[in-house]
Amino acid sequence: MKAANSTHYTIGLDYGTNSVRAVVIDVADGRELSSAVYNYEHGESGVMLEQSNPDLARQSPSDYLVGLERVTCAALEDAASDKAFSTDRVIGIGVDTTGSTPLPIDKQARSLSDSPKFKNDLDAQAWLWKDHTGHAEAAEITDAAAKHRPEYLLKCGGRYSSEWFWAKTLRCARVNKAVFDAAHTWVEIADWIPAMLCGVTDASAIRRGICAAGHKAFFHTAWGGYPDADFLSKLHPGLKRVRESLPNKVYNVAEKAGTLSAEWAKKLGLPAGIPVAVGAFDAHLGAVGAGIDDGTLVKIIGTSTCDIMVSPVSRNVADIPGLCGIVPESVLPGYLGLEAGQSAVGDIFNWFVNKIQPGGAAATHEQLSRDAAALRPGESGLLALDWHNGNRTVLVDQRLTGLMLGMTLHTTPAEIYRALIEATAMGARTIMERLEAFGVPVRRVVNCGGISARSPLAMQIYADVMNRPINVSRSLQTCALGSAIAGAVVAGAKAGGYDRFEDAIPRMTGVHERHYTPNPKAVAVYETLYAQYRQLHDAFGIAGEKRDLSQVMKTLLTVRDSVHQQSK
Amino acid sequence: MKAANSTHYTIGLDYGTNSVRAVVIDVADGRELSSAVYNYEHGESGVMLEQSNPDLARQSPSDYLVGLERVTCAALEDAASDKAFSTDRVIGIGVDTTGSTPLPIDKQARSLSDSPKFKNDLDAQAWLWKDHTGHAEAAEITDAAAKHRPEYLLKCGGRYSSEWFWAKTLRCARVNKAVFDAAHTWVEIADWIPAMLCGVTDASAIRRGICAAGHKAFFHTAWGGYPDADFLSKLHPGLKRVRESLPNKVYNVAEKAGTLSAEWAKKLGLPAGIPVAVGAFDAHLGAVGAGIDDGTLVKIIGTSTCDIMVSPVSRNVADIPGLCGIVPESVLPGYLGLEAGQSAVGDIFNWFVNKIQPGGAAATHEQLSRDAAALRPGESGLLALDWHNGNRTVLVDQRLTGLMLGMTLHTTPAEIYRALIEATAMGARTIMERLEAFGVPVRRVVNCGGISARSPLAMQIYADVMNRPINVSRSLQTCALGSAIAGAVVAGAKAGGYDRFEDAIPRMTGVHERHYTPNPKAVAVYETLYAQYRQLHDAFGIAGEKRDLSQVMKTLLTVRDSVHQQSK
Repeated sequence: MKAANSTHYTIGLDYGTNSVRAVVIDVADGRELSSAVYNYEHGESGVMLEQSNPDLARQSPSDYLVGLERVTCAALEDAASDKAFSTDRVIGIGVDTTGSTPLPIDKQARSLSDSPKFKNDLDAQAWLWKDHTGHAEAAEITDAAAKHRPEYLLKCGGRYSSEWFWAKTLRCARVNKAVFDAAHTWVEIADWIPAMLCGVTDASAIRRGICAAGHKAFFHTAWGGYPDADFLSKLHPGLKRVRESLPNKVYNVAEKAGTLSAEWAKKLGLPAGIPVAVGAFDAHLGAVGAGIDDGTLVKIIGTSTCDIMVSPVSRNVADIPGLCGIVPESVLPGYLGLEAGQSAVGDIFNWFVNKIQPGGAAATHEQLSRDAAALRPGESGLLALDWHNGNRTVLVDQRLTGLMLGMTLHTTPAEIYRALIEATAMGARTIMERLEAFGVPVRRVVNCGGISARSPLAMQIYADVMNRPINVSRSLQTCALGSAIAGAVVAGAKAGGYDRFEDAIPRMTGVHERHYTPNPKAVAVYETLYAQYRQLHDAFGIAGEKRDLSQVMKTLLTVRDSVHQQSK
Repeated sequence: MKAANSTHYTIGLDYGTNSVRAVVIDVADGRELSSAVYNYEHGESGVMLEQSNPDLARQSPSDYLVGLERVTCAALEDAASDKAFSTDRVIGIGVDTTGSTPLPIDKQARSLSDSPKFKNDLDAQAWLWKDHTGHAEAAEITDAAAKHRPEYLLKCGGRYSSEWFWAKTLRCARVNKAVFDAAHTWVEIADWIPAMLCGVTDASAIRRGICAAGHKAFFHTAWGGYPDADFLSKLHPGLKRVRESLPNKVYNVAEKAGTLSAEWAKKLGLPAGIPVAVGAFDAHLGAVGAGIDDGTLVKIIGTSTCDIMVSPVSRNVADIPGLCGIVPESVLPGYLGLEAGQSAVGDIFNWFVNKIQPGGAAATHEQLSRDAAALRPGESGLLALDWHNGNRTVLVDQRLTGLMLGMTLHTTPAEIYRALIEATAMGARTIMERLEAFGVPVRRVVNCGGISARSPLAMQIYADVMNRPINVSRSLQTCALGSAIAGAVVAGAKAGGYDRFEDAIPRMTGVHERHYTPNPKAVAVYETLYAQYRQLHDAFGIAGEKRDLSQVMKTLLTVRDSVHQQSK
């Protein structure tokens, strides 16, 4: 019997695009005892590429398992320097991964790439989220769904993506019959890695998560789970067999994928039989690690953003056009999980600094931020659209590009830099307004990811443009922390964890003391600028929207002049 | 008696913003024997400024006369190294100046600034073209004309400018009664300098040129010359007196302002009595020096452009909306003179290189031009509006700003640089199309000014975008050459000159051997891009124009992809 106040720990595993990370977390308060990272061995920075096909991006499943052992052992070893810690106090494990990253496996749940026959076959590896080889197939699926199953599209923003499960399996059926026929089924690595930890050796016994199934594979209880075989057969007869290999029930992250197998327990030096949570995508568990609750929008801001909200299932939120996915329990049990995103944020700032101003005197984020912070809202007369990598939410259109207007012969790099930050904030506001228009009010915003911690300028602009208080997540590894929280919930209160996410999240997550409050004067200026942004957004983004844009530049000049006037 | 084939010379005087230049030109072939420059002494780079009023820009008339002597003597001295040359073979003088640059003078045609009372009064100096102190007065004149004399506005692009004659005299009436009352009349320096050369000592004897009167002072034979006193009195009672000081007849550059006075002949070492041509603006005589004729568009490309065309008066061209001015004989006798312009060209390229890329590795015009020349039309997916300093023609709107769209995370500085050049070429095409739509066909384009000689890349892009052969003027000093041609025409064939500009221009002007021919493949791509440019141009530039812009970015991406496809 443990003492009531004795310490317990969970392990969070976070599988990113280039590396996997493990953290050891104190269940009582979410403190990170230790952390370790493993960079995948195969390919370029862990991604297997093909010279002749820029769309292709694969990953070696063996990297996942080798990395799993390395990072867990290293993190545990490091944690041991804390005297209170011991491995027998680890009560659960959670896993998050990139996705949709499906993997072809055999009947025994082994990756096809394990077999000598397919070892070097790129199609037998994991099809990484950013593999776009299935773009034609994705269009085909969108068309077929629009024709035969329009309800499917309502849950995924109206368009099936080349990044997703069925586009990739259909692509394989088309281009590599050998791999396709040899695969007993396809599984997201978010589901496969927990299954491996639990020693699953029967593909049909893998517990698949609602997160991947709902957001990427058209799974919904409204139509009885995955898409029906009839529909899939229209795309390719072979998909019928894939459909038959899939279960009718999927699980949320409060449920166990299984318990740690003796074999893996030994490898990792952990107690066998501790529970492993059902896996989910990094952004979704990242939202958990950032402290998501009803009314909180979590923005994971990196090169792009992923925006997550939850809404009680009982509130009966309608389909929201333009969202990447609306999936019951994809984030938390009892809540609808809502996913949105911006195709580029940090990438845009990096583009300007590294590509447009290389070697320039003022060409660092630090210097440009300092100069941009000295500017007042509206002072530059500039306005930009943040579409340099297309628009994920709410337009769901990759064939859009960046725009900037308001330039004069006096426009400076710092003004451009600030306008780019403002543009991403306006993109964020557009997502927020769409959520609110469909019955999901946003009370506060919690930002996480590197930019949140590094750029007070950006955070203040977000607060002013969105007119919401902005918090920044305390943890720098919210995804891994979210996984560790899932580990604590599947362990349960009796074992020293928590019975519900609602209990775990307030205790295990937190925000930085420094937060950002909307400045009423800036808010007023950004109201006007945002109205102009929406004019441009709708004019360039929505077919058939005829707009009179003749006052856009003039309005910006009027705002600029009045800001200058105020300073006199 | 001179031998039939003996050589004759004329002098061209070109009064710019910061300096005056004299050239000695061989009448037979336009060859420049010598040239000399004098930088005005007063003010900053020759412009008198006032700390408290950034709109103010004046010039000391004494600089004009001191400079006149200095540059003429220096150029003649230099020319003397040519054995064939002697000063008694100089047969005429021509003068061009900036404008509208009006000067208050007394009854004896002396500058008020000559009198001790007004010596240091800025309002008694020449009001330089770029003086904008009269912006409120300009708006007032526009409003009054719209109400009472709408026909006035049809000849000047629909809006009276703060740079022009009546805005400046009205401004003076408002702010400096002493100067206004002391002025017997106001005269453009284009008219005053020739008058000085000819020893005019009676203000009413000054021969005023149609160029300044027509383009800047509402002079038109359709309503009997300058605006009527009734109209002017509505603006300010004192303008009635100014109106009464003005002649009813004005002259073109084929006519004499007079003949060189004995006093000036002595100062300059030239034969007294040789004819001095009526003065005109630099751009207009620049067009003459570039070889203008019916069907040739002359573009004087510098920081901004001035575009000049002529059309036989007999052709009866209608008013052309958006043009800066449509004035019979303002360029050549017998021809309508048409003036248009782009508010910024070289200034935009300089802005990008000097302000946006300062210190960058690739931040020179030379390197960016090299990199941009390696790109194919349409390859970048970029499109820009060249409105960084507003839009002179055809929108006549300074409250417009630059725009660029099509940026992705891969966009490079060279792509932006090229897109900026293309934007100015599309602005040039818009002017050309407006001219053609109103019955003034453009057969070829002759560019002059620094960029024409320095940037083969820009010239080829202009040829491809405008789909017209582009020539570059042989002379680097087309304005001074044009003045010298006027000197040869007022001298007449009997004196060794020419009787008509049509005879002088083919002999005295020429273009570089290197010319630019439209490349059909590039032309086809730019057709598509220009259609998109016009969409943006009209959407942002014309009130009430509702447009569906949703296909602009997609069209650019489609062009980009097809260009990339072709190269595979």
